[in-house]
Formats: sequence, structure tokens, C-alpha cells
Amino acid sequence: MYNFEFCVSTEIFFGKGQVVRLGPAIKKRADRILLVYGGGSIKRNGVYDDVVGTLNAAGVSFVELSGVEPNPRITTVRRGAALCREHDLQAVLGVGGGSTIDCAKVIGAAVRYDGDPWEFVADRTKITDSLPIFTVLTAAATGSEMDNTAVISNLETNDKLGTGHPSMLPVASVLDPVYTYTCSAHQTAAGTADIMSHTFENYFSRADDFALLDGMAEAILKTCIRYGPVALEKPDDYEARANLMWASSHAINGLIAKGKADAWSVHSMEHQLSAYYDITHGDGLAILTPAWMRHVLSDATLGRFVRYGVNVWGLDPALPGREIAERAIDLTQDFFVRRLHIPATLREVGVDGSKLELMAQKASTRALQTAAFVPLFPEDVLAIYRSCLG
Amino acid sequence: MYNFEFCVSTEIFFGKGQVVRLGPAIKKRADRILLVYGGGSIKRNGVYDDVVGTLNAAGVSFVELSGVEPNPRITTVRRGAALCREHDLQAVLGVGGGSTIDCAKVIGAAVRYDGDPWEFVADRTKITDSLPIFTVLTAAATGSEMDNTAVISNLETNDKLGTGHPSMLPVASVLDPVYTYTCSAHQTAAGTADIMSHTFENYFSRADDFALLDGMAEAILKTCIRYGPVALEKPDDYEARANLMWASSHAINGLIAKGKADAWSVHSMEHQLSAYYDITHGDGLAILTPAWMRHVLSDATLGRFVRYGVNVWGLDPALPGREIAERAIDLTQDFFVRRLHIPATLREVGVDGSKLELMAQKASTRALQTAAFVPLFPEDVLAIYRSCLG
Repeated sequence: MYNFEFCVSTEIFFGKGQVVRLGPAIKKRADRILLVYGGGSIKRNGVYDDVVGTLNAAGVSFVELSGVEPNPRITTVRRGAALCREHDLQAVLGVGGGSTIDCAKVIGAAVRYDGDPWEFVADRTKITDSLPIFTVLTAAATGSEMDNTAVISNLETNDKLGTGHPSMLPVASVLDPVYTYTCSAHQTAAGTADIMSHTFENYFSRADDFALLDGMAEAILKTCIRYGPVALEKPDDYEARANLMWASSHAINGLIAKGKADAWSVHSMEHQLSAYYDITHGDGLAILTPAWMRHVLSDATLGRFVRYGVNVWGLDPALPGREIAERAIDLTQDFFVRRLHIPATLREVGVDGSKLELMAQKASTRALQTAAFVPLFPEDVLAIYRSCLG
Repeated sequence: MYNFEFCVSTEIFFGKGQVVRLGPAIKKRADRILLVYGGGSIKRNGVYDDVVGTLNAAGVSFVELSGVEPNPRITTVRRGAALCREHDLQAVLGVGGGSTIDCAKVIGAAVRYDGDPWEFVADRTKITDSLPIFTVLTAAATGSEMDNTAVISNLETNDKLGTGHPSMLPVASVLDPVYTYTCSAHQTAAGTADIMSHTFENYFSRADDFALLDGMAEAILKTCIRYGPVALEKPDDYEARANLMWASSHAINGLIAKGKADAWSVHSMEHQLSAYYDITHGDGLAILTPAWMRHVLSDATLGRFVRYGVNVWGLDPALPGREIAERAIDLTQDFFVRRLHIPATLREVGVDGSKLELMAQKASTRALQTAAFVPLFPEDVLAIYRSCLG
């Protein structure tokens, strides 16, 4: 167990109608803000009107940046930062899913950075400050509403990189489960896979001495397994949406991670797919995860997979360990494919075999080779990619 | 599920030697502080020297208030507030277990309150502000290091009441598991029972729609069951002490509570015991809990007890529900008595039968009669007290 610092100061307003708390919360920090959103779904489902309503009521004026991409691009960050400077804006509000919120965070840091923002996306140690960040979440997935990191894509270089700084932690976030009712089945499925993947990245670690965190992770996984399919079948099921939404925040805010080392193996492999093929992040994670599990299962890692099978999938602990592990992996894949209806292979989401070697080289970072649950070298990543090509 | 606000901004420095982070953290807010501690054990185990070292290194001067009681008294709060005013102190640092930290918090609020502090202990709505609170935790139990509440006793009136305010949330807390090595077996046992009781108060609730929180609560309970006995047998087991310490914080910081109603039934009953007989809080909780469980078990509550038995104690879900529930309660009592070596009856801790009626009247608050998992009227509390008198 490592020493750690834990500080998640985001003020969360959780529940139906809680958006009315947003305007007053922003007003304490800013009179003029940048309002960042995506393709405009928030204008169809009423979220935009709710947000504008609370901003107006609190006397907060805003400039808009719309059209943030599903894998948000550095070019959009530059546009947003320019707007903030031009209008002397004092905070950034992201209204949407993880992509929009990530974009808002990096805009906030870009305004306080003297240089091109790609520099600090590529090297987070260059960040020293950010405008205050606020968020209204409309999709349970990335947990960006309660963490200080963001992922940004550069289409020129085919890079998709994570960055972050304590100053990018949202000051306040509105989590209204009703706002996720209009998420499509596909978005809901991909979001659920993303929450599960964040949890796996921490749960499958070399550390075996922090059982409290393992139990917390299992609680999140069981929540996704129980409520993901419910939300797909009944999009306006408040209980399902609420459980998934709060699970998304805790999967990545440090609760199940601090004190352990992690290398984010599957995310590193998936980011290459998104960077080169612009696929949905959650789809890529769901396709890669079972293949990665099969690749890293060994006598050395068996114990962790047995724990996973027994505690998450309810498998009989009296079964042989290897059988528990293999059944747990099969159940994981089955869940993604049959319950969440996510494609099983890379070809189905448009990834061909032409760039696997290049992507494998880029995915196998130093962290993957040294700190991962099981070290992954380029040949390992390539084998995993190939096994799920289809 | 209720709407809620969640904001736990305490900066946690967790791990061996993390006390060195304390001085700089305080220095950002204060140059002169009140250093609050208990009976002096911190002078024998080196914690006092570590704290003084980091304060000196950071240039923070301090005035001392020692001798805080295990059930901290309002008279001690008054003394501390007077010292703060006399020396114009800017923050309060509690070094100890929950009693010392609770006392530090209420001193902080008392300094910013125009009147006698018992007024706002009896009515927390009167609190508007507090001096900044800092803590160094030396016992895993109350979770006071990461919440904004405190419990204070008044020996003149035999009252033991909880109070709290967002401004009383510690700004920063040092959680070094090594600092709990010198806790006695009895302190460790009582602390573990306290963590479990905090969890039970939330887990046994009428709400059945927040499965994520139920899973988190089960993780905390299983952590206590696994590591409590280890810490008793091997006081310097870092893994056990660390898991218990972090469990103590999350059992009461809102993680497993927000969104649910709770009435804190067993705590309400126990506070009467501590107020009239000055017994160890954790002992009272461990004695009362199984009796309370037996009293509230019914067809209506069976489902929750079955979940508890299966998920926490690993009982076979194929058994009849009533059998699972009764075995789970027996296992709970067995754990407290045989594994933690806590007395099984009230008489063993010095409580006679002379004040049961009076205490039952005071314990059965409006909250217990209306919002509890199962409403408890004075006759219910009396029956529970009597059943564990021994």
C-alpha cells in the first residue's frame, strides 16, 4: 500500500431538479462564463433551457462553445480558450457527457497557460492553474464530473492523451439522473462499460493489501451489472440511472485507486483505437477487456480472478480456481455482448488490421511495461488486438 | 432515494510519516493554533513529538489544551474556546481519537459563536462558522477526521448530544496507520465496533433503491470483520490498521448515507448509556446492536437481513430467509464477543437496571419514532435495554 493524498472537494448536487443550485454556486466565483456543450442534444431534451434558466436567475452571463466532439479535439480546446480570453470569461461550465466536460476542463487550464494547450496535454506537469470548472452531467460514464483529469485527441498526430491537474477538479457538478433518460441505448451501454473498465483498471492491480478498496470496486461492478441492462430496457428508470450515475463518479475519483499503483492497461490500448479510428471509447473498452483478461490470466494472477468471479459474479468458491476465473471472464464478455449489446469484435466497429503494430507500439508505454497488473510489451498488446479483431 | 448534496473537501494525508504534510497545510491558514489532545498517550508514543516537529518546521506556534475526556465534556470545550480567545488563535488542531477531534471541532465553532457553546450543541442550527479544524488521527473509530459532526457530553444534565456544521469539517487530516499501533486491544475492539455501527445505521434503512451504497457498506463491514481481529492480535499489522483507518472515515463521511434517510437508532440508545454511565461508546454499541437487530427483525425487514447474511457473512442464499437472518445476527454478536472480546451484557460494563425507563424515554426521539428503519418507541427501547442487561 502506498502513501496517498485524497482530496475530492467537488460540491455535488445530486437528484431531480438540482440544476437550480448551479447558478448560485457559479455566481460565488464568476459573473461571466463559457458554456461548453456537444452536438445539441441538450437543446432537445430541455437541459439547455434548465441551465440557461439557473444562470439567468443568478445573474451569470455566458458565451457559448458548441459542437464538442465525442472524442474532444485540441482544435476545439483552442477555440474555447480564445473565446474565454476575448470575452474575459471567469469560469468554464461543461454541460454534457465526459467528452464535453473533459474539453471544458482543458479549456480552463489553457486559459491559464502561456503557450499552446497541446503542450500540457502531452505533459501535465506544465499545468499550474485553471479557471474554475463547473459541470452538468448528462451521461454516466467517464466520471469526469468528479475527477481532475481529461482526455484530448489530436487528429493531426493520431494521439489521444490524458492530462490533469488538481485545479481542473470541478468546483461543483450537477448530477440529475433524469438528464440521462435521453441517452441512447448505445450511449448507455458504452457508458456502463466505461465505468466497469475504470473499476477493472484499479481492481486488477498487483496490490493485494487494500481489501476495503477491493470491496468498494466490487460494489461498483455489481451496480453496473445490475442496473446497466435495466437502463437500456427502461431508459427512464430513476433508480437505475441514479445508481449508474453515482457509480460513474466513484469509479474514478480516487476512492478505489488511492494507495494502489495502476497503469490503466486497457485504457492505454483503447486510446489508440479511438485515436486512429475515432470509435466509441466504451465500445473499445468492452471489446478489449475480455481479451486482456484472458491474456493476463495465469497462476500468478489466478487469485484475483477467483475473487472477481466469486464476489462479483457469485460463482461457487468451491469450484476449481481456473474454472472460476475462466467462467468469470466469459460472463464478463457475455455481459458486454448479450446484455449491453456492444459489438464483440474490432472489425464490427470499423477497426481493420492495418495499424495494429503501430498502435501496439504506442500503447505499450513505460507504465504498461513496468507498473501494470501484468506488464504488457508491444507483442502482448498486438496479441490482444489480434485476438479481438474478429 | 432523496436528493442530496455531497461535499467532503477534507485533504487527507494517508500513510506512514505523512504528518510532515501537516505543518505546511496549517501554515496556509494559521500562524497560531490551539493544540488539543487527551490523556497524554501521544507523549508516550511519539505522536506529540512528530506534531510539534512539523508545526515548528512550518513556523506555526501553539497553545495546548490537554486532558480531553473519552466522552468529551462541554466544560472542556469552554476552556478551549477561552484559550483561543485569550491568545487570538486562528485554528484548532485535534490530535487523538474521535473524542479529542470532536472536542476540537466544537471549540472551533465555540470561538465563532456569541454565547455559551452548549446552546449550539443542543441546537446545531445556531452554528454559522468555525475556526479551521485540523486533525491527526490516532484511533480508527468515529470517522470524525472526515465529517462535520461532533458529540459532546454534559455531566450536569446527563446529556450526550450530536452537533455539526459544514464549517466544522476538517480542512486537513493526517491518517497514519502506524499511529494506531499503540491503541490497546480494548480501544481497537471498541473502535471497530463503532465503525461497524456507523455502517449498520445506514445499511439498515428503509431505502431499498440505492444498491451502490449497500455494496459500499458491505465492503466496510467485511473490512472490519476481516481486519479487526488481526489488529487485536497483531497491533502493528500495517495492512489491518490501514484498512480499518480508511474504513472509519468512509463509514460516516456521507458515502454510504447520502440519498437515504437514517435515524441512527443504536447510537441514540447508546448515547444514553454513555451519558448516564460514562461507558465506552463502542462497547455500548456492540452490546446493543444484536439486541436491536433481534427486536426489529420481522417479515417486513427480513429481506434486508437476508442480504446482510449472504453478502457480509457469506451465508448460503439457499437457506430459509429466517434462518439466514437469525444466523447473521448470531454471527454479529459472536464477532463482537468472541473475536473482539467486548462484554456481552450491560451489567458487565457497569450499567444497572435503575435508569432504564428514563434512558428509554430520552433515547426514543422523534427521529426514532418516525424515520428509523423500524420505529422505536420508549417501550421498544426499554425492551432492547432489558434484553441485554444480563
